[in-house]
Amino acid sequence: MSEHIVKSYDRDLEALGRRISEMGGIAEKMLSEAMDALSSSNVELARRVVESDARLDALQREIEESAVMTIARRQPLAIDLRECIAAIRISGDIERIGDLAKNIAKRTLKIATEARLPRAIVGLRSMHEIAATQLKDALDAYALRDVERARAVWENDVDLDALEDSVFRDLLTFMMEDPRNISFCTHLLFCSKNLERIGDHTTNISETVVYLVTGEAMPTERPKSRGFGGPDNDPQ
Amino acid sequence: MSEHIVKSYDRDLEALGRRISEMGGIAEKMLSEAMDALSSSNVELARRVVESDARLDALQREIEESAVMTIARRQPLAIDLRECIAAIRISGDIERIGDLAKNIAKRTLKIATEARLPRAIVGLRSMHEIAATQLKDALDAYALRDVERARAVWENDVDLDALEDSVFRDLLTFMMEDPRNISFCTHLLFCSKNLERIGDHTTNISETVVYLVTGEAMPTERPKSRGFGGPDNDPQ
Repeated sequence: MSEHIVKSYDRDLEALGRRISEMGGIAEKMLSEAMDALSSSNVELARRVVESDARLDALQREIEESAVMTIARRQPLAIDLRECIAAIRISGDIERIGDLAKNIAKRTLKIATEARLPRAIVGLRSMHEIAATQLKDALDAYALRDVERARAVWENDVDLDALEDSVFRDLLTFMMEDPRNISFCTHLLFCSKNLERIGDHTTNISETVVYLVTGEAMPTERPKSRGFGGPDNDPQ
Repeated sequence: MSEHIVKSYDRDLEALGRRISEMGGIAEKMLSEAMDALSSSNVELARRVVESDARLDALQREIEESAVMTIARRQPLAIDLRECIAAIRISGDIERIGDLAKNIAKRTLKIATEARLPRAIVGLRSMHEIAATQLKDALDAYALRDVERARAVWENDVDLDALEDSVFRDLLTFMMEDPRNISFCTHLLFCSKNLERIGDHTTNISETVVYLVTGEAMPTERPKSRGFGGPDNDPQ
């Protein structure tokens, strides 16, 4: 390839990386704001989270199209082909993380007028702390092409799974204590599932980083807790 | 391109189509067996469903790799490029449908020893009937490149969403009637969410068929019911 073509190719890849980094920033903000909205019943903030999802969807489509066109035009091999495939996969996972944060914001809108049980949200806030750290680490691992950091994210997902297991049992207990808690806690059950699935998509991102840098796939089975109603129910 | 290259290219696309059709058959079987297992507490059948998911994951990876290699080697344009992109997207959606059916099977294993409430499953069976028909129609639409059938699937998803809304309210009622129903019904809540999401992935498949044949994207917003706790909560 001529130097000109090589440079323009590098620019293609740089543009993909920039847009993924933009997507990551939006998803992190959505997740943090969705949890703030849930904790403080902030309907206005929840609405803003729902609205910001459109930008994420648009970016994902753009990245997918650019990556496919880059593959078709440049016929990349090895690491360069993996860059394009990784961009498609990671943008898909970030888009799903945005969807899941949006779901939490939508639940906030649903339960705004319901009887609340503040202590039921405590466990969700702990889940959010882990999920947000994991997401940041996975995005950093991608930006820095850092395989060790990616592997750590992959291994730490078990903490989030274990916590969801405990949140699940707590919420069931609150529901059994008082039927008036049932509706509110049911919505929180779905929020905790959303957080656990954000962890799964974060783990997918870290798997893609390992594939991108090394060309190898991670083992298909992650470490998993085996609790009641827990993560092994819904591994997506 | 020489005739030889064209023929070998057609063979690539045919192979993609055959493998997607194999994936579709496996996903349909998993869904139907997962619901049978749930209805009859058939632990043995539930285990078989869980095991069959591995084949679906392997097929998806194969399809993704073949499609990307075809794009890189043949530099297809227009309809042929769309064939490859459609194969990647549809195999991703079928893989997710298999995951969701697997989740229903895993819930069956969890609740095998719990107090059961047979009438709580009735609504889920109705949801399954719609979801199974929609999935069959979406796969047929892909096999036949039938845009009208694909559009019908897209429009009918609202029925499944409305039914999930009603199942959600029924399950909440059963839980409020008797706290001993809470655990069982909570697991069924997640099953109904899994069925609704199978409907969403089926709708994605139909959107991809329209894109494949016409080159156009469907409008971003589908018709949606707006009920309590219903489909607009978790649109993925």
